[in-house]
Amino acid sequence: MYDLIIIGGGPAGMTAAIYAAREKMNTLLITREFGGQMAKKEVEIENYPGFSAISARELIGHFERQVKKLKTATEIAEVKSVEKTALGFLVETDKESFESVTVLVATGADPRFLDVPGEQDLLGRGVGYCATCDGPLFAGRTVAVAGGGNAAFESALFLSKYAKKIYIFEGGPALRASADLRERVGATGKTEVVLNARIVKIEGGKFVSGVQYRDAVSGKTVDVPLDGLFIKIGHKPASAIVSGLADTNDMDEIKFDPATHMTKTSGLFVAGDVSEQKYKQIVIACGEGAKAALSISEYFQQLTH
Amino acid sequence: MYDLIIIGGGPAGMTAAIYAAREKMNTLLITREFGGQMAKKEVEIENYPGFSAISARELIGHFERQVKKLKTATEIAEVKSVEKTALGFLVETDKESFESVTVLVATGADPRFLDVPGEQDLLGRGVGYCATCDGPLFAGRTVAVAGGGNAAFESALFLSKYAKKIYIFEGGPALRASADLRERVGATGKTEVVLNARIVKIEGGKFVSGVQYRDAVSGKTVDVPLDGLFIKIGHKPASAIVSGLADTNDMDEIKFDPATHMTKTSGLFVAGDVSEQKYKQIVIACGEGAKAALSISEYFQQLTH
Repeated sequence: MYDLIIIGGGPAGMTAAIYAAREKMNTLLITREFGGQMAKKEVEIENYPGFSAISARELIGHFERQVKKLKTATEIAEVKSVEKTALGFLVETDKESFESVTVLVATGADPRFLDVPGEQDLLGRGVGYCATCDGPLFAGRTVAVAGGGNAAFESALFLSKYAKKIYIFEGGPALRASADLRERVGATGKTEVVLNARIVKIEGGKFVSGVQYRDAVSGKTVDVPLDGLFIKIGHKPASAIVSGLADTNDMDEIKFDPATHMTKTSGLFVAGDVSEQKYKQIVIACGEGAKAALSISEYFQQLTH
Repeated sequence: MYDLIIIGGGPAGMTAAIYAAREKMNTLLITREFGGQMAKKEVEIENYPGFSAISARELIGHFERQVKKLKTATEIAEVKSVEKTALGFLVETDKESFESVTVLVATGADPRFLDVPGEQDLLGRGVGYCATCDGPLFAGRTVAVAGGGNAAFESALFLSKYAKKIYIFEGGPALRASADLRERVGATGKTEVVLNARIVKIEGGKFVSGVQYRDAVSGKTVDVPLDGLFIKIGHKPASAIVSGLADTNDMDEIKFDPATHMTKTSGLFVAGDVSEQKYKQIVIACGEGAKAALSISEYFQQLTH
């Protein structure tokens, strides 16, 4: 029986593990891999305080060593289900089951993929999912954003501070971004919106060189030379494993009490990108992970004393 | 006219500066010194994700270089007042005045005083708030720490490297320091915890010679001969400069909308230890600073388009 099981080894989960260890909680961290979304990034991270520029892998390495130095038990596995028991929770993985008094869900969110050729190969080499993170690398370049919602337009707005030109490729016949955002993006004078543009291929060798889209109306394919493509067609918060125990919003993000990070189920906590939290940034996830761990420690002490 | 003035150069202010610079906001950071409370911290920091152990000064150095690399304007000065103007805010320092569309208050918190006779008179002559600065002066001596939280125990741990004996006087019936810290402090074999010990007087002539405390249970006063006393009983949030513009709670922490970090005054934001936020940790302040900067950027863009 653990005091705490942390599900997820991204920034929120690892920071929570550091804090829980210092709180002397008997903790198990279960994750498919360390790093979460960071593990999929090849680019340098320039907005994590403490490092002017560091590769995602290096930063993960620092976090992981710090967790392991504190002797937190870790398990590389995929969590299949979380159930409430009389004494706490039963966490079933693809390997074995574990019990714990409290659970922190820090499973993160995966960006939605276009699922087109070139997307995985060129990831971190011109293909990205976070303009706030990687946008500054495209100063003076031509880039594109895939998507027509608020996230896509927010990305375009941010990119306009750096890039020379920004295409916005929306697969459907209309944009979903707010009028206000569309207006502000238009006012940059740097953007070109292309509707009905279904990206079918991302071209490139060492780096992205362009995209090919099919016009959904005419059926024609069009090649556009580009230096980068940001894919902003949504996120999939990994909240399904606790769907019976926690409420989610319409984006599948888990709701929680901001004061305690607890979900509607006593003893079940949440932090990081899987939670209802607008800004998805590494340092923000870390801060939330720390808060959640300190809150869990208080909850645990109250429960067991 | 700046887009944003950040008041305070601690973890929250510096992280906000990093994010604001990347949002291309024309930002001025005003601070008395870089580092905030970190600048006064003696111990190694072991709970900031990314560094298993780092001195506070080193970590400040990393943050400061990162801010300066982004070419954010900085001003070493003390802010005297913040006033709302038609177009934004007027920020007056002890040197000059600046105007800005938005302001982020990240002024942190100062140590609390005991407010007992002898405290001010003997300051720097045995009474201190910073064990690092003065701890080495007490090699082989008997000292005390007032307080029962993490800061008090961190100080005791540092002092145990020099002093012969360390009393820990906690005014209440229980300690608030983490189990981990209490254990490490206990393991030095040099400390003696006294609960319910309300310090009523600090004795001394040229230097501290002892303290007098009243036992809150028996009501008796007890004299303890000592060579030094470190006061670690909490912090005073530096919220006074915006007292007319922002609401505070009963601990003088500034209240804000958690979704936007905005205070009750439009355009005035808050982050870090000066804000209403239970857990005062470096990484939490960083996360809040990042959130505030991203929210300010959105507010600014909406205002100016």
